[in-house]
Amino acid sequence: MSATKKQRTQPPYELLYWPSIPGRGEFIRLVFEATHTPYTDTANESKDGIQAVLACKDEQLTRDDDGNPPAFAPPALRIPGEGKGGKSLVLYQTPSILSYLGGRLGLAGADEVEAHWILSHALTALDLNNEVHDTHHPTAIAKYYEDQKEEALKKAEDFRDVRLPKFLGFFERVLKGNEEEGKGKYLVGGKLSYADTTLWHVLSGLKFAFPKELEAREEEFPTLFGIFYSSVQGEKGIKEYLVSDRRKPFSMGIFRHYPELDRQ
Amino acid sequence: MSATKKQRTQPPYELLYWPSIPGRGEFIRLVFEATHTPYTDTANESKDGIQAVLACKDEQLTRDDDGNPPAFAPPALRIPGEGKGGKSLVLYQTPSILSYLGGRLGLAGADEVEAHWILSHALTALDLNNEVHDTHHPTAIAKYYEDQKEEALKKAEDFRDVRLPKFLGFFERVLKGNEEEGKGKYLVGGKLSYADTTLWHVLSGLKFAFPKELEAREEEFPTLFGIFYSSVQGEKGIKEYLVSDRRKPFSMGIFRHYPELDRQ
Repeated sequence: MSATKKQRTQPPYELLYWPSIPGRGEFIRLVFEATHTPYTDTANESKDGIQAVLACKDEQLTRDDDGNPPAFAPPALRIPGEGKGGKSLVLYQTPSILSYLGGRLGLAGADEVEAHWILSHALTALDLNNEVHDTHHPTAIAKYYEDQKEEALKKAEDFRDVRLPKFLGFFERVLKGNEEEGKGKYLVGGKLSYADTTLWHVLSGLKFAFPKELEAREEEFPTLFGIFYSSVQGEKGIKEYLVSDRRKPFSMGIFRHYPELDRQ
Repeated sequence: MSATKKQRTQPPYELLYWPSIPGRGEFIRLVFEATHTPYTDTANESKDGIQAVLACKDEQLTRDDDGNPPAFAPPALRIPGEGKGGKSLVLYQTPSILSYLGGRLGLAGADEVEAHWILSHALTALDLNNEVHDTHHPTAIAKYYEDQKEEALKKAEDFRDVRLPKFLGFFERVLKGNEEEGKGKYLVGGKLSYADTTLWHVLSGLKFAFPKELEAREEEFPTLFGIFYSSVQGEKGIKEYLVSDRRKPFSMGIFRHYPELDRQ
């Protein structure tokens, strides 16, 4: 299928997520970008686009005009024409959106077995993502880092010493186990999946947030950092995206660089 | 389809999870029990069953003899005959296992739209489950509660005051939005799904861990506690399960009753 045909047959996907940061919306953006699929990033593309983000998570909402349930939190994805009775479908929860898009955009493996392994590995990468968030917000999500800094120092130490090597070691082993087909480039099978793009983004965020820790650990995980990371980064759609102004820099979102939380 | 026929056509599902506690394995048990589907709970049913649990998450494992990737952590599900080339399939990550079984056991809604809403709501209930775990282990998963009690007091206060009402309010609204079809008994559509069983178990755990907080809040969420909770608990398969010795009591797992973390 030509790129033009593909673009024409895709529905007008609309990502509803906070503007200006990568955040959890980035996992959704990457599957669109990796497959050259057109999408609207509503809050980044129009000044009042954030209203649509706020509307889908409105704490008075029980269902929207198209019969969709409310979203607990962004990201959400709106897909005109794909909901009940031909109305708009709204999905929330990153893994649910990824599994929906994965099947449609060719990022969910060669068969149902691979599709479920891909979902499992993406969930594990997202668990790692959540644990990174908790390093700077260990006791209260809605309060300032400065108000929980003492706890954050403890949490970050445990994360660096115990949790991070456990996750990285796991993904190194998954890549090793799939080496025959995946050549160290793919977690499952012989082609790119949303598990790969999801893990890649978490690793890129870790390099930003904990540069010293990651540098010190890179050689412990040679497949992950020597092959996988640069391979996913070099995928055509990803490579083009990363030099575009659509890729937002890390700042004060999930991945934050507080030198005191990094390896000392 | 008669129950006998159904039982005969299901593969011999094998749950791999820690023995003696409900834990994350409980979400998987509940979908089997709600549908009267036979399964083996390996570590609870045989003395050395725990070896199979340890084997699937062995930190040297890159892939098993049937070509399955390692599990990051239990629960895992082994399904003989459903893997690559007719070998055993092993899946890990609770939401991935639930989405696999949901489709096969009739707990994933009436169509693909409902299947994705169900996955999204189950993921949100599991996020709540994780936040409960973090109330007693805010800074180090592998250390004792007693070594992080000061931080736990702060985390639990934030959980009770901010996070818990946000989650409960969300599910109350989802039930309200689906009232026409679901009558307050189901989160999505007009029949039981794995989102319902998953949320129900988290609520049952919350009642154990934070009895005062839950009692004080019940009337704020009349559909959730007045209709949904007792309705799911009364589903035939669930009801039978809860009085069996297969239902393990809450103890020192995810849901723990520390009076000092409850409402004072």
